[in-house]
Amino acid sequence: MSWLCYRIMTKKGGPPSVEKVVFCYNWPTRGPMTSLFADRMRRMQRSTIREILKITKQKDIISFAGGLPAPELFPIDDFARAMQQAFSEDGASALQYDVTEGFPPLKEFLCEWLGRQGIKCTPDGMMLTNGSQQALDLLGKVFLNPNDTVLVENPTYLGAIQAFNAYQARYLTVPMDDEGLQIEKAQAILAKKRPKLAYLVPTFQNPSGITMTRSRRQEFLRLAAKKHLPVVEDNPYGYLRFTGEAVPSLYELADGRGVIYLSTFSKILSPGIRLGFVLAEPEIINELVLAKQAADLQPNSLIQRAVWHYGKNGSLDKHIPLITEAYKNRSNIMLQAIERCFPKSVRCYPPEGGMFVWCELPKGASATKLFKKAIEAKVAYVTGSVFYANGGGDNTFRLNFTNSTDNQIREGIQRLGKVLQEAC
Amino acid sequence: MSWLCYRIMTKKGGPPSVEKVVFCYNWPTRGPMTSLFADRMRRMQRSTIREILKITKQKDIISFAGGLPAPELFPIDDFARAMQQAFSEDGASALQYDVTEGFPPLKEFLCEWLGRQGIKCTPDGMMLTNGSQQALDLLGKVFLNPNDTVLVENPTYLGAIQAFNAYQARYLTVPMDDEGLQIEKAQAILAKKRPKLAYLVPTFQNPSGITMTRSRRQEFLRLAAKKHLPVVEDNPYGYLRFTGEAVPSLYELADGRGVIYLSTFSKILSPGIRLGFVLAEPEIINELVLAKQAADLQPNSLIQRAVWHYGKNGSLDKHIPLITEAYKNRSNIMLQAIERCFPKSVRCYPPEGGMFVWCELPKGASATKLFKKAIEAKVAYVTGSVFYANGGGDNTFRLNFTNSTDNQIREGIQRLGKVLQEAC
Repeated sequence: MSWLCYRIMTKKGGPPSVEKVVFCYNWPTRGPMTSLFADRMRRMQRSTIREILKITKQKDIISFAGGLPAPELFPIDDFARAMQQAFSEDGASALQYDVTEGFPPLKEFLCEWLGRQGIKCTPDGMMLTNGSQQALDLLGKVFLNPNDTVLVENPTYLGAIQAFNAYQARYLTVPMDDEGLQIEKAQAILAKKRPKLAYLVPTFQNPSGITMTRSRRQEFLRLAAKKHLPVVEDNPYGYLRFTGEAVPSLYELADGRGVIYLSTFSKILSPGIRLGFVLAEPEIINELVLAKQAADLQPNSLIQRAVWHYGKNGSLDKHIPLITEAYKNRSNIMLQAIERCFPKSVRCYPPEGGMFVWCELPKGASATKLFKKAIEAKVAYVTGSVFYANGGGDNTFRLNFTNSTDNQIREGIQRLGKVLQEAC
Repeated sequence: MSWLCYRIMTKKGGPPSVEKVVFCYNWPTRGPMTSLFADRMRRMQRSTIREILKITKQKDIISFAGGLPAPELFPIDDFARAMQQAFSEDGASALQYDVTEGFPPLKEFLCEWLGRQGIKCTPDGMMLTNGSQQALDLLGKVFLNPNDTVLVENPTYLGAIQAFNAYQARYLTVPMDDEGLQIEKAQAILAKKRPKLAYLVPTFQNPSGITMTRSRRQEFLRLAAKKHLPVVEDNPYGYLRFTGEAVPSLYELADGRGVIYLSTFSKILSPGIRLGFVLAEPEIINELVLAKQAADLQPNSLIQRAVWHYGKNGSLDKHIPLITEAYKNRSNIMLQAIERCFPKSVRCYPPEGGMFVWCELPKGASATKLFKKAIEAKVAYVTGSVFYANGGGDNTFRLNFTNSTDNQIREGIQRLGKVLQEAC
């Protein structure tokens, strides 16, 4: 007989509905029912996006719901070659235990590579992670006590909410406009509240595609410094600019002080290899290393060496312009189709890079309610409300343009346009 | 000016001493000093073993301190071939995002492979992790509230203590003898206390090398079932038996009920590829998946496919006997040298598999104090006290035999024997 005695089924609202199963068991000395699991698990649910993705796997559906890079652009041959070099040149060390901080030659390569893009860093101010998602988890572990608050853009990256929820964080949400986070709104919040961290995706944001302007960045950094507020800058998309003028990162503008910079190879090489990196003051890196050692000892020895060879071979520099050019084209096709097919009352934000177009229905309309009709019309998006840390945003949705062909984009936007024309 | 204003240096005792830097900053509304970092970070320190390893990297030192597999046995060619298959046969999917639970064909292969060893499982009762260490971290996340207790063997695996410390766990330590954890001691503890989990390494334990007998396993499982105590069985070494008779795993004896089984490819293939797996009831797997999704989204797509090909090619089954044979030989050489060189007052535990020999000095003697003399004699071990979750064990030390040549083992044990002869 198993010690799992009771099952309580609770249903969370919001389509597509997600079921969460909470297990409890009979714990004689603590009253009749005590949860088997830790309190923090009550805050954790399967990603709504992943549930949406299941629905969108139905045949004939054109899906703009995912956030996947274009698989046909993966540099399979170049990366396979780099991997062979890891085996033949690095030998047993590529399969052995290694340091928690990350493979030193890869860190040196990355510092040189980032330096060419204006980001000054040193290997002792860097740690390698399993994608940016692990950096978010480790930051939660290092910084957040239960009920500590994090200041975030509204909307913000869902994965960050998931990571911080595991540490029972609360959120202070700051509205955005097409220049990024609104400074005066952040000021008003910080006049009253004391968040532990600020978390921003200032460049080609997921989900909104919006890029924070240079002047907003400077104002925000001044505000954060005044309030002793550590700023986490998540920059997975920044290397994928296809139009407009480059804006320096927060990390660059702050000269690395008070800013923790996250990035990843997921969007510029491959998400499946799970490799990202954090830049921070060495004292912060030290704590992150402690947390990573306890979490999974070290980054992947073999993958780190393959990426190092790949970078040294010049393949990374060769590859990024290819992706950027392809995404520029797909973004243009989507924006033109939107111009043609969507009602004028739907506002869409043209991105200067990255992977997403963000759309707002007129106030009062519900992208959540429309989702069912969109699926009936064989087209899918992600309902925007999932990106609002404290709720709201029901009139918004996110479109991804990197994982569809040109024709799929044209056809899918046309289908969605019809649904919107009927509804708005 | 950085917002890092103050540094408080605290020194932890115990050789080799480890410095921990705690950062605080001026937080106007919460009194003069508030820690920048979360409370849980006070419990986290750099692994003492990793600090010891730095010392032992000095030239001429023969080190039995690490816990590294023999690198000359890594199956570089076979694994490189499997990796090429991942690129050529799986293509873009090997580099794309994938499911959190783990690559389904690898899970199926593993269930078949484990089935041949008497471990019955199904893919929906399995999750892939970044080595066993990540499973320990995720178990902490899923099960432990601050001050929850975990029942552990005394001594126990240091990595588990590190993982659970991050969730502010406390420990109930159960003494061992050469048959494993002492049941009556566990009974006495469980008569009074209600731990949230039991954590055991019942086969070729790290650090002690001890294997829990079949009857002790059965008695412990009965006790755990009676007390509704979930049991975590960590089994990284179990596939490396070189002498004695096989003992069924706790998971097998319990028919998978109430037991969470962890294992890894680290000791049977490569630790650098960071791939492990958890078996548990699907309801537990569901919570672990939620935690993993927030922690780093998914296991490595590419590595999982390479390991799948490697397994399907028959390379895993071919390789394990090679490692086992080599470790048997090294273990024998170490035990014979110990017999020759150590004073009779030092008790050592001959293992039936795995990677370690455990030694106890006479009561009152200190392996910590002797460490300096050993280093002077150019030989190193790990002081056993680091494996005692609540302190103690100062008269114990751990020897690793897998990462030294036959001659190094003979010479190193001779050196250590001299140090011990003088001291005991």
